[in-house]
Amino acid sequence: MVYLAMAKQKIAAAPSVRRLPLYLQVVRQAQREGIQYISGTFIAQELNLKPIQVRKDLGMTPIIGKPKKGYPVAPLIRAIKYFLGWDTTREAVLVGTGNLGTALLGYQKLQDHGLLVVAAFDSNQEKIGSLIHQVPVFSVETLESKILTWGVKIALLTVPSHAAQGITEMLIKAGIEGIWNFTNVKLKVPDRIVVQKEDLSSGYAMFCVMMQARQIGKDCSRSLLPQR
Amino acid sequence: MVYLAMAKQKIAAAPSVRRLPLYLQVVRQAQREGIQYISGTFIAQELNLKPIQVRKDLGMTPIIGKPKKGYPVAPLIRAIKYFLGWDTTREAVLVGTGNLGTALLGYQKLQDHGLLVVAAFDSNQEKIGSLIHQVPVFSVETLESKILTWGVKIALLTVPSHAAQGITEMLIKAGIEGIWNFTNVKLKVPDRIVVQKEDLSSGYAMFCVMMQARQIGKDCSRSLLPQR
Repeated sequence: MVYLAMAKQKIAAAPSVRRLPLYLQVVRQAQREGIQYISGTFIAQELNLKPIQVRKDLGMTPIIGKPKKGYPVAPLIRAIKYFLGWDTTREAVLVGTGNLGTALLGYQKLQDHGLLVVAAFDSNQEKIGSLIHQVPVFSVETLESKILTWGVKIALLTVPSHAAQGITEMLIKAGIEGIWNFTNVKLKVPDRIVVQKEDLSSGYAMFCVMMQARQIGKDCSRSLLPQR
Repeated sequence: MVYLAMAKQKIAAAPSVRRLPLYLQVVRQAQREGIQYISGTFIAQELNLKPIQVRKDLGMTPIIGKPKKGYPVAPLIRAIKYFLGWDTTREAVLVGTGNLGTALLGYQKLQDHGLLVVAAFDSNQEKIGSLIHQVPVFSVETLESKILTWGVKIALLTVPSHAAQGITEMLIKAGIEGIWNFTNVKLKVPDRIVVQKEDLSSGYAMFCVMMQARQIGKDCSRSLLPQR
């Protein structure tokens, strides 16, 4: 079974895990509306999923539903947050304060989920010493010593592709154990390091397949379009 | 079967579709290295997937593998691009040139996949009339008339949450049929409109579950951290 040994970062139920934040959103909305119990069927309808899928996914968490009533709303929220570790705060640094990095520093939702970006690093002298969305920006030259001192274990990587592997090696020397990788580089890291790679291409693939089915926007070639 | 009628935008094989861009990346790398045939097992190893999953996913596309040799590399690339509609150009507009919008305008990979953002719209007077990553920025007040004239059918939505539903209604009046929604708002749209909602929370959920398994960065509360 060579395969199992290799699959170091494979999560068995990846699509199920990815759906949990959607459930959380639906259940929180129900809570705001004063609803006490919510059924798997209702959640499924809200999200265009099959009820059996919702019940299976929620089965990963410690929640127990009641026959004919559904899941108690407040405990369900706690159960999903517990499973995801969103009931606690995780401190992180961000490296690379370009447009994407800046957008992430201002993304309130991550903070709502317990991700607290405590510092950013950049090589741009004009940014060093400034605050971006209240987060202080430090010189990338101080990255290793600062992260070691603070003991932060998580980094968001939003540097240009050519810098990604080099910065990653600095981060690992500094004690970083989890990297949320927004670059398009497949990072080479030791087995013990957790890397989550974000790739817009997957979402774009879904968008395209849905549009393909309806022949939207394909092969358009119009002379009225603005010059590029 | 109320469910089927409701699932207007449900793609049966969503996780499979999401994986196709990863396969494309691996197969293109093989092509650059001069490889002629690639096996499902090799692709699976590169991506920590099961070989049977890769073969099943590629079965959605028109590629046919050869016993003992695998898939011919150049036809496999063409087959994936054909299935995703990435062998053609799609024109789109972007609304909202904040940090995320600006980052997307500079994201070369989307253009590589055939998405050509021909114009951007914003309400900020300082941006109107400028170019961002070579894309001209127009006043949001001219959005409806311009999109109608051009006949563009696809929009990327990167406006603040409070503006999302209003802009969406303008886009639909202007003939937009597909919306790639980067806001955290669940848009209300007619059935015929395709909406793909991007949500970083799903990726963050995966990242957290992987970190949970290794007890990374949880419940840290250090006095050495920089002030926020």
